[in-house]
Amino acid sequence: MSEDARSLAQRAQGMIDALATISADPDKLTRLYLTEQHRAAAQLVGEWMRRAGMTVRMDAAGTMHGVMPAGRAGRSGNRRLLIGSHIDTVVDAGRFDGTFGVIAGILAVEELRRRNVALPFEVEVLAFGDEEGVRFPKTLIGSSTVSGALGDAMLDLTDANGVTIRDALLAFGGDPDALADEAYAPGSVIGYLEVHIEQGPVLEQAGEPLGVVSAIASQGRYRIAIKGEAGHAGTVPMDVRHDALAAAAQVILITEEIALKHQKASCVATVGEIKVSPGASNVIPGLVEFSLDLRAATDEARATAAEAIRYRIRNIGVKRGVLVSIETMHEKPVATCAPHLKKAIADAIGKATGKKARELMSGAGHDGQAMIHLTDIGMIFVRCRAGISHNPLEFVETEDLGTAVEALVGTIESMADSYGANNR
Amino acid sequence: MSEDARSLAQRAQGMIDALATISADPDKLTRLYLTEQHRAAAQLVGEWMRRAGMTVRMDAAGTMHGVMPAGRAGRSGNRRLLIGSHIDTVVDAGRFDGTFGVIAGILAVEELRRRNVALPFEVEVLAFGDEEGVRFPKTLIGSSTVSGALGDAMLDLTDANGVTIRDALLAFGGDPDALADEAYAPGSVIGYLEVHIEQGPVLEQAGEPLGVVSAIASQGRYRIAIKGEAGHAGTVPMDVRHDALAAAAQVILITEEIALKHQKASCVATVGEIKVSPGASNVIPGLVEFSLDLRAATDEARATAAEAIRYRIRNIGVKRGVLVSIETMHEKPVATCAPHLKKAIADAIGKATGKKARELMSGAGHDGQAMIHLTDIGMIFVRCRAGISHNPLEFVETEDLGTAVEALVGTIESMADSYGANNR
Repeated sequence: MSEDARSLAQRAQGMIDALATISADPDKLTRLYLTEQHRAAAQLVGEWMRRAGMTVRMDAAGTMHGVMPAGRAGRSGNRRLLIGSHIDTVVDAGRFDGTFGVIAGILAVEELRRRNVALPFEVEVLAFGDEEGVRFPKTLIGSSTVSGALGDAMLDLTDANGVTIRDALLAFGGDPDALADEAYAPGSVIGYLEVHIEQGPVLEQAGEPLGVVSAIASQGRYRIAIKGEAGHAGTVPMDVRHDALAAAAQVILITEEIALKHQKASCVATVGEIKVSPGASNVIPGLVEFSLDLRAATDEARATAAEAIRYRIRNIGVKRGVLVSIETMHEKPVATCAPHLKKAIADAIGKATGKKARELMSGAGHDGQAMIHLTDIGMIFVRCRAGISHNPLEFVETEDLGTAVEALVGTIESMADSYGANNR
Repeated sequence: MSEDARSLAQRAQGMIDALATISADPDKLTRLYLTEQHRAAAQLVGEWMRRAGMTVRMDAAGTMHGVMPAGRAGRSGNRRLLIGSHIDTVVDAGRFDGTFGVIAGILAVEELRRRNVALPFEVEVLAFGDEEGVRFPKTLIGSSTVSGALGDAMLDLTDANGVTIRDALLAFGGDPDALADEAYAPGSVIGYLEVHIEQGPVLEQAGEPLGVVSAIASQGRYRIAIKGEAGHAGTVPMDVRHDALAAAAQVILITEEIALKHQKASCVATVGEIKVSPGASNVIPGLVEFSLDLRAATDEARATAAEAIRYRIRNIGVKRGVLVSIETMHEKPVATCAPHLKKAIADAIGKATGKKARELMSGAGHDGQAMIHLTDIGMIFVRCRAGISHNPLEFVETEDLGTAVEALVGTIESMADSYGANNR
């Protein structure tokens, strides 16, 4: 590992540890959108941006922006390259998820300055405040604001205490009425880059510190309800039962079977929540409601899997004499990374690691899903231990942090080469 | 229907409705052990017993006893025939479960007096206070006290408010230290009869108002825990998952399959409670805990089914790389009704209904499970609508109530015939 990379790794680790001290709970890391902790984290990030020579401002949605001006003219006409991630966390979170992407952006800017690289475009680092969607029933508010993808009214959505997004924004110093004005014009930016921990086991199992993301998965979230007939566990013979949980068990196994069948398209199906009514050990379940999370590398694969699941579930309903309903909670299309950004990233990873970069899908959602409405996106994944994330056990080797910043710097330099070519 | 039966039916209905007004909640029927409502119900029952000419007392466990002396000498040597059921209810209960058995006993005594039948044994009606086991983690305290089957220390068990059974008994006017003295000597009784609603759909489907119970099922309650590996729903490929809920789904279907295989032995298996951790729609379940309620007409059938389930579960654990544990919460052996009581009941049902009596197993537990430690047991089942019980929708046709009391009177007369034979 180069001296530069080692130094970057140590700085990154120090900054991650500093941000991790900003938590609503002294015993675990919890930093939700538009809270005191969000403000403190944004201020610290802003301070780092300033020290890196950037012009800093907070926007109407609470996103911190740090801008480094272009160092030379170029084909990009002083458009901006955006680099971002989020500084909010889940409850009892790990310290790398999101925050490292913001820190990597700041360190990359610092490093480019240190190396006296004159870029033919501005670089803007974005620290979004709400990627996790924990406080409000809405995600990606910051990146959707910047990308103009905010869409339908969401200001009246409330948190668990009944506080609306509007009121929380006002209390934070944001401006609910100025969100639409924050949207960037597509012509003003040249792309969006994000460094993020993988949150999965693929890179670790392959023994590779970094990977280039091919796409952020196509995702659907559904709620399935099965209405059978409750009854006494001792008195209703097996062959006349309409047990809603037995039917649900069959559905769960079918979602697993169908996802396995589409595994080539990186299809995954998860039932993570289940509620049984009445829920007593001596009563046959009359109603079972459960979640289904379905993702795949392409919208087609997910749609095919969803249709197969629907078909099989209907059959189960008929055979078991239970009523089945499937409600689509949300569907997000695949966000495919731009080939030219994938190439720049893969080349930079190759240089930083000495290995050919592996391409992998992101099963997890990211700010890029919103940013793709504005511009091309590219993502660098960093391996994490055992794929564990959203958990205090989340862990990334310090060395890998440095390698990741190196790769981000390399990607930016490579983009500078192509955008500046005409003006060299 | 005879004039006598019609009159008994109306009286029974009136008494059931009167008891149903005694509830902890004005909007639904809830009457728990050793509460004010229990006391009020016991007092009303005691009043009815007195009016029927019985000597009344409340015992140390809060059970109301009403004794009608023998009318003539006989082979029974003035031993007692016990008739009982319970006056406690579940939360938001139906009005027939338990209470009708007590009322049927009182009305049978009245009817025998009205007909001037001189019995060669005493008849004692018992109104137990705690069959449902809702308030304390213990059931059948009243019947276990009378039958001497109380067993291990249970006085320190507490309700949801931390009140011990000992303190609740003292506050009620019972005597925790005198419970053992209440046990009847086996030589002093000739049998125990109970009338109860079926709580299942068999009699209704057969179009028969009454049935004779062959046995109270062998029952086992187990807790099964499956420990897999939690993970992000989007980032862990299907083929490396250890999804605890998918494993549980397989187990649920296996319990269903095995119970169906043993359906000739009236085997039923129910998973009624399930808890998934961490329980978020986008997290692969790492731990699933669920209940298994397993019953059958014989201890052998239940044991065989339980063993088959254990065997299959272990295989699932190995194949899926999850840790499976099965804990036995309780096992109650089958309580087989005495052939001579079954015959007396079947004959009486035949007379009361004009149809050959159908034999059926009781999948639900009853006070007879405790009383069998003292004496022979016999049970009459009364059809109820759609098998619904433990629910305000619980319903029995008024006419069937009268037919059931008729059958109980007939059973007692038939026993009088055999016990009195030598002395006629």
